[in-house]
Amino acid sequence: MRVPSVAIYTGHTALQIALGCIEEGLGVIIFGPKERLRLYTRFPAIRGRLEEYRGEETLEKISSEGGVLVLSGGAIEYLTPRVVMSARVPVFGLRELTRWEADWFLKTRLLQDAGLPVPRYFRGIDEVEGLVIAKLPGAKGGRGYLVSSSRSELERWAEKQVESGAVESIDQLFFQEYVVGTTMYAHYFQSPVMDRLELTGFDVRYEANADGIRRLSPRSLGNLRESFVVTGNFQVYPRERLLEDFIEMGERFVEATGRLIPPGIVGPFCLETVVTEDLKPVIFEFSGRIVAGTNVYLGGSPYLSLYWGRPLTVGRRIAMELRMAWEQGRLGEVLT
Amino acid sequence: MRVPSVAIYTGHTALQIALGCIEEGLGVIIFGPKERLRLYTRFPAIRGRLEEYRGEETLEKISSEGGVLVLSGGAIEYLTPRVVMSARVPVFGLRELTRWEADWFLKTRLLQDAGLPVPRYFRGIDEVEGLVIAKLPGAKGGRGYLVSSSRSELERWAEKQVESGAVESIDQLFFQEYVVGTTMYAHYFQSPVMDRLELTGFDVRYEANADGIRRLSPRSLGNLRESFVVTGNFQVYPRERLLEDFIEMGERFVEATGRLIPPGIVGPFCLETVVTEDLKPVIFEFSGRIVAGTNVYLGGSPYLSLYWGRPLTVGRRIAMELRMAWEQGRLGEVLT
Amino acid sequence: MRVPSVAIYTGHTALQIALGCIEEGLGVIIFGPKERLRLYTRFPAIRGRLEEYRGEETLEKISSEGGVLVLSGGAIEYLTPRVVMSARVPVFGLRELTRWEADWFLKTRLLQDAGLPVPRYFRGIDEVEGLVIAKLPGAKGGRGYLVSSSRSELERWAEKQVESGAVESIDQLFFQEYVVGTTMYAHYFQSPVMDRLELTGFDVRYEANADGIRRLSPRSLGNLRESFVVTGNFQVYPRERLLEDFIEMGERFVEATGRLIPPGIVGPFCLETVVTEDLKPVIFEFSGRIVAGTNVYLGGSPYLSLYWGRPLTVGRRIAMELRMAWEQGRLGEVLT
Repeated sequence: MRVPSVAIYTGHTALQIALGCIEEGLGVIIFGPKERLRLYTRFPAIRGRLEEYRGEETLEKISSEGGVLVLSGGAIEYLTPRVVMSARVPVFGLRELTRWEADWFLKTRLLQDAGLPVPRYFRGIDEVEGLVIAKLPGAKGGRGYLVSSSRSELERWAEKQVESGAVESIDQLFFQEYVVGTTMYAHYFQSPVMDRLELTGFDVRYEANADGIRRLSPRSLGNLRESFVVTGNFQVYPRERLLEDFIEMGERFVEATGRLIPPGIVGPFCLETVVTEDLKPVIFEFSGRIVAGTNVYLGGSPYLSLYWGRPLTVGRRIAMELRMAWEQGRLGEVLT
Repeated sequence: MRVPSVAIYTGHTALQIALGCIEEGLGVIIFGPKERLRLYTRFPAIRGRLEEYRGEETLEKISSEGGVLVLSGGAIEYLTPRVVMSARVPVFGLRELTRWEADWFLKTRLLQDAGLPVPRYFRGIDEVEGLVIAKLPGAKGGRGYLVSSSRSELERWAEKQVESGAVESIDQLFFQEYVVGTTMYAHYFQSPVMDRLELTGFDVRYEANADGIRRLSPRSLGNLRESFVVTGNFQVYPRERLLEDFIEMGERFVEATGRLIPPGIVGPFCLETVVTEDLKPVIFEFSGRIVAGTNVYLGGSPYLSLYWGRPLTVGRRIAMELRMAWEQGRLGEVLT
Repeated sequence: MRVPSVAIYTGHTALQIALGCIEEGLGVIIFGPKERLRLYTRFPAIRGRLEEYRGEETLEKISSEGGVLVLSGGAIEYLTPRVVMSARVPVFGLRELTRWEADWFLKTRLLQDAGLPVPRYFRGIDEVEGLVIAKLPGAKGGRGYLVSSSRSELERWAEKQVESGAVESIDQLFFQEYVVGTTMYAHYFQSPVMDRLELTGFDVRYEANADGIRRLSPRSLGNLRESFVVTGNFQVYPRERLLEDFIEMGERFVEATGRLIPPGIVGPFCLETVVTEDLKPVIFEFSGRIVAGTNVYLGGSPYLSLYWGRPLTVGRRIAMELRMAWEQGRLGEVLT
């Protein structure tokens, strides 16, 4: 059996995954909308086939050539969870988790079932107490979120979301306690081949306008409100005493996915946390696949050095897992 | 012909340029005020001649020895644009761009002519609408800027600038729409030798007091106002989907400089942007030479790995361009 | 004489110190509370003996085996300054400085005696003028601090600290001018073996809630107040023109410790500064040992490349100093 080719949807983390696959000697197919392919012609280090995405037939073609699809934020957002779920192409990652991730209540259920500390959430606006963040469904990158402690303001916002068609009904909206502290996005890699969980690194998001308004004095701010559209990421290093907590939280997440969504998570995932004043991370969301925050160690993460003796990107780590699984005849354990 | 020696003004990015030149086997002359030279005696890795700057005769001496001057923020600010423009020493970079950069209206004209998205700007205080940032001419590192939406406050500020002699007349002041979003400074390298534009990395500035007051609650803030004196820089990684936009903006800038200021930009430059909630970068300034923000990858930028297979600093990249141009007898294409 | 084994208290910077010692061929003993040891079993790169800390007898055992203790934030906070001061085990670092660091008035005296720029401090609440930060004694990681310009509020806070038993008397509290600017933590390594001071890097702390509230608009903030519990660190690069100032401040600190606490500081230390709008660093505290902020270059600091030709962690630098001192029969110069 030939070494598999890896199909990577454009954007998000495609550069690091493509580079990693090239370094590990795997074939690379970068696919997506025509205008998004151009970026991947610009760098001599990125070699591989570029393919315009023309709907499910493209995935069909990749599949028939023996390619595998890497689950990434771009794949889920632009192919849609439905297509990712139903496509015949083998997927590196836990495909079924995509469905849980897209639904606030399944998402919260998984975190609670894993025994992880989560913020309070409220079934309706009339239950809301204290400062709340109101969210839209799906990975919209924080667009349209509202932070407020006013029920009447939350109600006006909710009505606007239904009227504008952003949601079909008010039930799709999510009202979560706004936990104040420092956000920290913890990145992991669950390796079936090595039978272990690896901690790969941490980032903090750089969000418009939340990180823009913070630089203005209240006088200059006027009526500007915070919003949470991710524009980039910073690398952060948590206190060493937090690392064991982060690892144990990752293990509980792996265990819960194995129990509720067998065979459980494969490869990269992220727990999205706020660390409070008493140094307790609270998990407000998760991502069941590689996150864009791993781009902060495009040059290699020093945490991966602790396992592999040299800094690696998560893209490289994905490629290593695929190559090792292939060499050991265990591809079935990493593809779903 | 001997390989050229590279003259580097103290401060700003002198360390990375000197290191890069040493690694590429080029001679190094670090020059500047006597008290600023001491830093370069402290590191065993920095070898080269140190020379006190005694005015234009120093540049004359460097020139007569066959040295070339690297255009840097330090060179422009302390030698003054006039001296940089008129000195006989060959310059790595587009010397003539210095004149455009020092003048708000030429600066804005170049960006507009390149078809780049810029904030609104206002010819006079009576035209001002909304939140505005009022700026002084020249690279003062953000000192003395004012953010306000009040015409009377802007007028008082403007009068003060004239009275204090910071400007000769109110016409030298610049009133620009204050765009709210996340600032992102995109770094580029235009290579005549490789005939391509390379994206080298991104930074965010760390500014007093804008980044100090953000950590205080409104109660503690009192009447403190934001100011924008650069004290340092952070490395940031924009979302991958923004990279193609950044590259195309860089290309438009290169094209416009080639058209308006032949032969056009050579080597490093920076587009200084705000990324808004709808993920559109708006360019509020540019720097037509290496910026201090490139110090965030003093250990090498992973973006340069995409072109060269290994992380590089911009200082090293400058040295490589000079060495390659010299080896190929093409120094005339990189010196102006 | 055998090469010494290095005893490292769990947490803080234990990973980088352990890795550094392994790379330099030194033996490693990681010790601490049982539940904190688990982290160090998780990474294949971390090899060495793990030992539960059972009080002073553990230090006695390490000492009798010829081990040396590395002074770190974890060692001081959890072993307590008293135990660190009195234990028979040789210490890498200036053990006696621990006593000065734990006392606000000795701490301030050392900085003033070194001729370093410090904020104003106030002997009593009735002397307070302007914005003040009120601090508790010891390395509590910023917990319980108050920023205020109101004497009555400061008095209520002070009474609460006495009532709650956080301090025995109001005299143990410290009232320091709150300097507005950008915080910058400068890291150094004083090497007796090389007889020089090395600049190793810079970080900025990521604090709950100070860095959480900054992302909320005043409307959302309500009555939330800033607090300063360190949850992580970011890497920052100061402007190059500040480096010489930072080095000279480090030299003055080294000189003062040599004069007041002979033989003076050995190994890593940190000056904790605010850089103001006029680009002057003001030192509000110091740490006379490795700080957690050095974890931001877990992959190696480019500043250490300027001395050693390759990026190093401070943990590796400690191990190199110990190995070189041992090889040259000069262990007595680095142990206290």
